[in-house]
Amino acid sequence: MTELNETHDPALRSWVPSANDDGADFTIQNLPFSVFRRQGSAEAWRGGVAIGDQILDLAAVAATGIMEGAAAQALQAATGAALNPLMALGPGAWSALRQALSRALRKGSAAQARLGTCLVPQSAAEYRVPARIGDYTDFYTSVYHATNIGRQFRPDNPLPANYKWIPIGYHGRASSVVVSGYDFRRPVGQAMPPGAQAPVVRASQRMDIELELGVFIGTGNALGEPIAIADAPAHVFGFTLLNDWSARDIQPWEYQPLGPFLSKNFATTISPWIVTTEALAPYRVAAPARPAGDPQPLPYLDAPGNREQGALDVQLEVLLQTPRMREAGMPATRISATNYRHAYWTFAQMVAHHTVNGCNLQSGDLLGTGTLSGPTLDQACALIELTVGGKQPVTLPGGEQRAFLEDGDAVILRGWCAKPGAARIGFGECRGTVLPARDVAY
Amino acid sequence: MTELNETHDPALRSWVPSANDDGADFTIQNLPFSVFRRQGSAEAWRGGVAIGDQILDLAAVAATGIMEGAAAQALQAATGAALNPLMALGPGAWSALRQALSRALRKGSAAQARLGTCLVPQSAAEYRVPARIGDYTDFYTSVYHATNIGRQFRPDNPLPANYKWIPIGYHGRASSVVVSGYDFRRPVGQAMPPGAQAPVVRASQRMDIELELGVFIGTGNALGEPIAIADAPAHVFGFTLLNDWSARDIQPWEYQPLGPFLSKNFATTISPWIVTTEALAPYRVAAPARPAGDPQPLPYLDAPGNREQGALDVQLEVLLQTPRMREAGMPATRISATNYRHAYWTFAQMVAHHTVNGCNLQSGDLLGTGTLSGPTLDQACALIELTVGGKQPVTLPGGEQRAFLEDGDAVILRGWCAKPGAARIGFGECRGTVLPARDVAY
Repeated sequence: MTELNETHDPALRSWVPSANDDGADFTIQNLPFSVFRRQGSAEAWRGGVAIGDQILDLAAVAATGIMEGAAAQALQAATGAALNPLMALGPGAWSALRQALSRALRKGSAAQARLGTCLVPQSAAEYRVPARIGDYTDFYTSVYHATNIGRQFRPDNPLPANYKWIPIGYHGRASSVVVSGYDFRRPVGQAMPPGAQAPVVRASQRMDIELELGVFIGTGNALGEPIAIADAPAHVFGFTLLNDWSARDIQPWEYQPLGPFLSKNFATTISPWIVTTEALAPYRVAAPARPAGDPQPLPYLDAPGNREQGALDVQLEVLLQTPRMREAGMPATRISATNYRHAYWTFAQMVAHHTVNGCNLQSGDLLGTGTLSGPTLDQACALIELTVGGKQPVTLPGGEQRAFLEDGDAVILRGWCAKPGAARIGFGECRGTVLPARDVAY
Repeated sequence: MTELNETHDPALRSWVPSANDDGADFTIQNLPFSVFRRQGSAEAWRGGVAIGDQILDLAAVAATGIMEGAAAQALQAATGAALNPLMALGPGAWSALRQALSRALRKGSAAQARLGTCLVPQSAAEYRVPARIGDYTDFYTSVYHATNIGRQFRPDNPLPANYKWIPIGYHGRASSVVVSGYDFRRPVGQAMPPGAQAPVVRASQRMDIELELGVFIGTGNALGEPIAIADAPAHVFGFTLLNDWSARDIQPWEYQPLGPFLSKNFATTISPWIVTTEALAPYRVAAPARPAGDPQPLPYLDAPGNREQGALDVQLEVLLQTPRMREAGMPATRISATNYRHAYWTFAQMVAHHTVNGCNLQSGDLLGTGTLSGPTLDQACALIELTVGGKQPVTLPGGEQRAFLEDGDAVILRGWCAKPGAARIGFGECRGTVLPARDVAY
């Protein structure tokens, strides 16, 4: 992982005033990437970098000819409708572009005059999934989530015997990964009601969320050639927020023996902004110490760098807004908060495990961390955990209760890094609303 | 599904003589598609249609300007490095191209003179995966396979309670789908030896095969809009052979609770030729009658057409050739034979189930049928079934025995349709060889 450098200096300020605001997500130390265009326009999709409440239009910047060398090459690779070409260039190019953008956006930069015309307000933009995702893999890296959910699905054996040896993962659906703001229909599927003799086909009655981080692979590996754990962080371009929407009545009936399928693959929402691995460097922390009695990671999952700074201190929260709250002008309310640093397995361990058998990752592939529930129940990041299987509904401002999501409910995920001596790095938000199921008889 | 038409007439003969040979896979009634170029050349990859032992080069045919209308449009869509554009045009276009190709390749066609120069011998060609596969989903449609393998993985509960209600499927890995002829390294991974206290990391000692058919989606569906079972066959472009290589010592240790992962995703091999759904029309047969006591399919998985002609009469076999057999000049030997008609769930049921929750399929997506083991043990299509978990090795000509695959072993899958009153339709072959694992300490 990149060492700290001039781009991380917390004293830097931008000539875009909103980037310097207290609590701004998109400081000059952040510089996350998206693919965007003006809302409702027929403009070409192109790469953008967030700065304050603005987007620096990378296609427009490239047209100015202001950059040179490796930065210019990386900039050009970010001007298309997906960031895969930039991702494929690797960490040297990403870093060169970051340094050039940081210098150009700093207060006092001579570039201000030419780049001032390359800004688009975020309020006027729409986004798309920022990469062509070849494959999407979801992991299960929070031992707290695995234990909480295991208790409900397999009360006799909540934590599988392999959990502390294997960063468990499975393949998800790439086609239904959507960007923040996509409203999706409540899925229909088979469920086996308690005590029933035959399954029913109906709209899911237990719609849930899962707060995760998404990990975008930058450079991949050839089929047959594993990525060593020490090299793994350099293969990761960056991180998004990710909501792994889940239909909890479809899941238990379908998931044996081959894993979750229709309970998950109707939609997975990610935030539009990819916060780069380099931007997160100040927030690397030691991987959590393993409790006494837990095995140490096997050699292919272990490296000094991973032990010492393999985890990331990212604060995360889940907010909910019901239709009634929306009509009453009430803001979304926080129902959970956690931190990525609690994860039992790091993102480098995910990459090393995924490729140990020779499986090839490609630029633009997406990995999910799994639900990032923390050690205590109020840090649980799925309703099925928070409400103990629906039995203890959460009470919302205004007195409404929710065991699972109802039609019209909006869920917002937020994430940020903050600590003394480092600039704040925000992820923006990841939002989705559940629409009523299709009105079809099954 | 397309009705029978002039292209299915068993009396048709081609001016390419080898297409008329007894036992030819690539008759004029077949006309399967691939993407190819001359071996070792730097030529552009382009679509081809098999006829006898030749490939009709579709880019060359397009350059002749010999076709018109819908056929010409479809032909043009098949001239690139992947067949997705052709797949996206839908069954009307596929059928128009098939009819035009059938007429042009018939004995006596006026096109012979111009198309004679558009042939490339198959012996001089190399192939690639014929479509950009967005997502790959593997199903589990043989109840015989599910029972055989369930007995070994879950002796107390061999057939999951959901099996007869749900066409069970899970997401596989698209990036590691390779074309016939790819030789892959034996994967390394975690296994938990019987009686051990901790897993070991080593090259798989139980390398296995799974004979399946691959189903290429032609036209997909929008996210949120299911495909009704009656419409499902029209969404399928065609079929390949598929070998779902499996590491049986990695699988049992990793697969709970989220399904198989590294035990499968190191390689999946498909045959280069996609036999179209239309070519298979003469071989539609009734879906197998469900035994007394089994539930009937739920309405979204049921349609008269599916009951009456939802299955396909495709004969399938697995052949094995060890290094010693190869050195001795002995041909590959058949170790199993089965028929796709035995599958408990049809390909239309796979498509309807996959989309009932709104999950979107896209042109070029690949579905696997799951291992197509038939009712008797000699029809089992994985070594773990044939050898009863490795306890009853198969004996090969020359006296060698195999419980699982050894380094250098080549596996060949073949498939064909044949019956009185219809032309033979062959799938060609799907071949792969296991190379030694990487020589790395773990």
